[in-house]
Amino acid sequence: MAVHNFVPDHYFTTIGSHPPVLRIADGDTVMTTTVDARGQDASGKAVTAPGNPMTGPFYVEGAQPGDTLVIRLEKLRPNRPQGWTRKILAANVVDPTYAQELPLTPDSQALAFWDVDVEEDTVTLSEPADTKLGRWSVPLAPMVGCFGVAPSQGQAISTATSGDYGGNMDYRGFTEGVTVYFPVAVEGALFHIGDGHAVQGDGEIVGTGVEISFDVQFTVQVLKGQKINWPRGENADYIFTVGNARPLEQCVQNATTEMVRWLQSDYGLEGLAAHILLGQAVEYDLGNIFDPAFTMVCKVPKRVLPKR
Amino acid sequence: MAVHNFVPDHYFTTIGSHPPVLRIADGDTVMTTTVDARGQDASGKAVTAPGNPMTGPFYVEGAQPGDTLVIRLEKLRPNRPQGWTRKILAANVVDPTYAQELPLTPDSQALAFWDVDVEEDTVTLSEPADTKLGRWSVPLAPMVGCFGVAPSQGQAISTATSGDYGGNMDYRGFTEGVTVYFPVAVEGALFHIGDGHAVQGDGEIVGTGVEISFDVQFTVQVLKGQKINWPRGENADYIFTVGNARPLEQCVQNATTEMVRWLQSDYGLEGLAAHILLGQAVEYDLGNIFDPAFTMVCKVPKRVLPKR
Amino acid sequence: MAVHNFVPDHYFTTIGSHPPVLRIADGDTVMTTTVDARGQDASGKAVTAPGNPMTGPFYVEGAQPGDTLVIRLEKLRPNRPQGWTRKILAANVVDPTYAQELPLTPDSQALAFWDVDVEEDTVTLSEPADTKLGRWSVPLAPMVGCFGVAPSQGQAISTATSGDYGGNMDYRGFTEGVTVYFPVAVEGALFHIGDGHAVQGDGEIVGTGVEISFDVQFTVQVLKGQKINWPRGENADYIFTVGNARPLEQCVQNATTEMVRWLQSDYGLEGLAAHILLGQAVEYDLGNIFDPAFTMVCKVPKRVLPKR
Amino acid sequence: MAVHNFVPDHYFTTIGSHPPVLRIADGDTVMTTTVDARGQDASGKAVTAPGNPMTGPFYVEGAQPGDTLVIRLEKLRPNRPQGWTRKILAANVVDPTYAQELPLTPDSQALAFWDVDVEEDTVTLSEPADTKLGRWSVPLAPMVGCFGVAPSQGQAISTATSGDYGGNMDYRGFTEGVTVYFPVAVEGALFHIGDGHAVQGDGEIVGTGVEISFDVQFTVQVLKGQKINWPRGENADYIFTVGNARPLEQCVQNATTEMVRWLQSDYGLEGLAAHILLGQAVEYDLGNIFDPAFTMVCKVPKRVLPKR
Repeated sequence: MAVHNFVPDHYFTTIGSHPPVLRIADGDTVMTTTVDARGQDASGKAVTAPGNPMTGPFYVEGAQPGDTLVIRLEKLRPNRPQGWTRKILAANVVDPTYAQELPLTPDSQALAFWDVDVEEDTVTLSEPADTKLGRWSVPLAPMVGCFGVAPSQGQAISTATSGDYGGNMDYRGFTEGVTVYFPVAVEGALFHIGDGHAVQGDGEIVGTGVEISFDVQFTVQVLKGQKINWPRGENADYIFTVGNARPLEQCVQNATTEMVRWLQSDYGLEGLAAHILLGQAVEYDLGNIFDPAFTMVCKVPKRVLPKR
Repeated sequence: MAVHNFVPDHYFTTIGSHPPVLRIADGDTVMTTTVDARGQDASGKAVTAPGNPMTGPFYVEGAQPGDTLVIRLEKLRPNRPQGWTRKILAANVVDPTYAQELPLTPDSQALAFWDVDVEEDTVTLSEPADTKLGRWSVPLAPMVGCFGVAPSQGQAISTATSGDYGGNMDYRGFTEGVTVYFPVAVEGALFHIGDGHAVQGDGEIVGTGVEISFDVQFTVQVLKGQKINWPRGENADYIFTVGNARPLEQCVQNATTEMVRWLQSDYGLEGLAAHILLGQAVEYDLGNIFDPAFTMVCKVPKRVLPKR
Repeated sequence: MAVHNFVPDHYFTTIGSHPPVLRIADGDTVMTTTVDARGQDASGKAVTAPGNPMTGPFYVEGAQPGDTLVIRLEKLRPNRPQGWTRKILAANVVDPTYAQELPLTPDSQALAFWDVDVEEDTVTLSEPADTKLGRWSVPLAPMVGCFGVAPSQGQAISTATSGDYGGNMDYRGFTEGVTVYFPVAVEGALFHIGDGHAVQGDGEIVGTGVEISFDVQFTVQVLKGQKINWPRGENADYIFTVGNARPLEQCVQNATTEMVRWLQSDYGLEGLAAHILLGQAVEYDLGNIFDPAFTMVCKVPKRVLPKR
Repeated sequence: MAVHNFVPDHYFTTIGSHPPVLRIADGDTVMTTTVDARGQDASGKAVTAPGNPMTGPFYVEGAQPGDTLVIRLEKLRPNRPQGWTRKILAANVVDPTYAQELPLTPDSQALAFWDVDVEEDTVTLSEPADTKLGRWSVPLAPMVGCFGVAPSQGQAISTATSGDYGGNMDYRGFTEGVTVYFPVAVEGALFHIGDGHAVQGDGEIVGTGVEISFDVQFTVQVLKGQKINWPRGENADYIFTVGNARPLEQCVQNATTEMVRWLQSDYGLEGLAAHILLGQAVEYDLGNIFDPAFTMVCKVPKRVLPKR
């Protein structure tokens, strides 16, 4: 149950079977940092190329294909006072005819900056606050946008997208205190993490949350021989499953099917009972609807679940 | 500002330019009843053919194409002690390969019955509760599944589906206390309402909520010359817009575009400010994902909205 | 086996249970005309409101729900020398980012005109031919864009869209010499026809073919008790089935499933054999990808079919 | 202009930045072989693991990111007398309710075998031909299912899927005599090829064509500084562009946008002229609709094209 204080010195913009940066044991805790989506660290300096650079991969001793890797997200904390966002709605989340009216702003001008105040728990548009929103402020709600384990077959897949191995899911439910489960596809699992957001709306519909570097702490656990098919998670109030695909209907299909399996394997329900329960108690959240693969989350409130 | 106590004696399973059952004035209130999705009334008797039969249409004096019809949902109350659901997940919300394993239960055997206790605020699986869920219970949360105004061009469209005129949206946010806005497409608006659910999970993924007859009360208002493109709504905490289409991506597009318009017309934001606000504060809910048209709802919390 | 020479004096822009314009017997032939998508007749005069006005409906004696209506398209002939098209690609058939670059031409300026020469079998951009295409010419290939029978439940549905009853399918395979099969949903079938195109690319991706008025001739036949689920067709070389829905995946699903049924009922194949045959011999065509419902066509070459 | 006779001794089931098996010059020709989708060679022996193993990658001297790699498919010839297919329609190409009726055959029993006669140009169900199709036969039509260049960012992506780099497109138009263009994303382009089919229906809707090993010959050419965004192709009658994505709508968007660019850059058309031409002359073909990414092909007949 070691605690590793890991200082990254290089990053990957694919999730894959890269040489591990650290080997850790089942039960270990890692304290480390992540850079923002453009590779900028706690000092605001670009230390690596942009595109959701990942800290890791971390090799977890004993993790084998067919196991489940448990990640407890113990700390997700912005470690600098300013983040940034894009400003224009993605063309694919508005009516095609409205998309024709979207401003064609050059990319470099398309950023907004935000003051992130961890003490006050606020995220506020920086000066000059030159839209009619002025110094508009929302509560701080840190979440991790992109994390997961190496995919199967030695694949290395861009951190722009996501799949059964996790990846760029941009789900605002991946917050401090949440436990996440990933299906292990390669030896050592090879866990990657990055792309912190100080806050984000559902869908990441401007293409970013408030992008910022993070201090992170997580603890790993290996569930031997427990095979899952898609990422799962758990917080104080819900269990949830994550479908990453395109289109959204397929995300719903992946996540719902995974939840049925979970209700059957861990909550003592036969298929029919799982169906009835979901029919009247399921909730869905929207993760990323901006990137090559989208994300939908299937949730069940713990208060309506049978005892595990 | 009359109050009409209307007792229906016939129903429609299409939403369209049918002869009105009642003419009411701008500002009037209607107290009436709805039958359940199979046409069964408060006594449990089938009084009309199944298929989401609608009470109405109500002709609202003064409503013209291009206006907005406001419906305040003042009462949505189950008026009998038992409802019913289907039990099996829809084939389109599970992985295609899992769909192959779904039980092919004859439709008549596929119903579950539920005790609906308005005093205790509970909905409970009726005896014999022969799955492992037993007498599983969830909180009562009445909502209206299908309502809206006559579509354009004299169309009459099945209450199985939905569109810009409303229809079978099955959104659990359409509860007592909510104000709903519909785009008027024909003279008199021709408002229809029915398909009450004692409770329902997101998506109506078994094809039903807990289907039941309702006592309903609503008040109408006409906003002259205020043109909207999709249904809108408002509750204590949120404003929201509703996209009804297939696939889900298009629902998101319709609802998001409608919200941008609303933020610009009523909240004093220029387009860019509306985009920035949505990017970091938007939420999406899933309505129906079972029927020919699906529903996604775009929400903004009132606490982050500029003053109207 | 009467031949009816029918001169229309009114048109409908919905397909539905309208009062029939003519009652005909099983086996009868109708010679009539259709106006173009904007309601312009053979003289180029607007005689009715725009929006794919339909000639009909024709009530076919003896046709009952559950039967199949056979339409032999014996003549589809432009009856004036000029047609028109829109010019700009639909926003939904190009990349969302490219959609932002589409010219926002006012609708009235967005038409191109075409000389339609039935003798020479050509369709040619009219003077002034002011793009770099000049007097670009393509072979004449007349087809009917929108036709079908009244949908179920007394519905009346806009001729902008399509469904299991037919409608605005814009499939370039609906040409002279083709036999089409529709599932009858109401007494008398109520056949509608209109929206002729002198030529059209796959998908109707600028929102129109070369829109023009037609002389048409068709012969009807009722197949009693032969229930089909989606439109079917047959030409010299192929049998085909038509799926009308959104998104395209669902069109494929509808059309493929209908083809499996057809191979089983009429070509003596068990399900497995139908699957094997389709796997190595199926072809798909794209109909409309512009309107609320899209169209995909599933085809099997007659040369690989078992004897009927 | 060397001719390389290359005998592969290992294969990859991802397309990526693997160590090249051969370095060739711009203009060189390669004669080699491919194994079938399960790794079986000309003798029918499994020489590598299944999953569309690729021959290559071939490093093409001088190819840089931003260039185009031209591949002339000069020979695609089955080199053994028997191929195999799956037999059951994919669950995602039939109606979800019909999917419930699909036979749940164990995978090992789900294969059909086919006699491939290169002299007679036929592909025929092998004995025992125990369905009602008997010894059903179709014309030989060899095509390559999966080929392309290494994707960007050092990614390595499963040969089950496809993207802008090519991959598992399963388009029956990739036949002998066709010229294909790929966007180069890494130095040397790193061309991979495999997954030959003796014949295949559109969509690869049973999950396979008639899978077989091939003798192949191709010649490479580098177009310096000519940047394309998606694969393109050309045969005697058509030019075409290929969109690989999910859902099909996005394939259409990718391919259509790429065709507009091509018409503008190489055929002297302004955007408006390209739109008008496509509107009345475009054709679409369906490639793969079975795998994680689907394929649609946008075609323009050469006879209607302006001179290049």
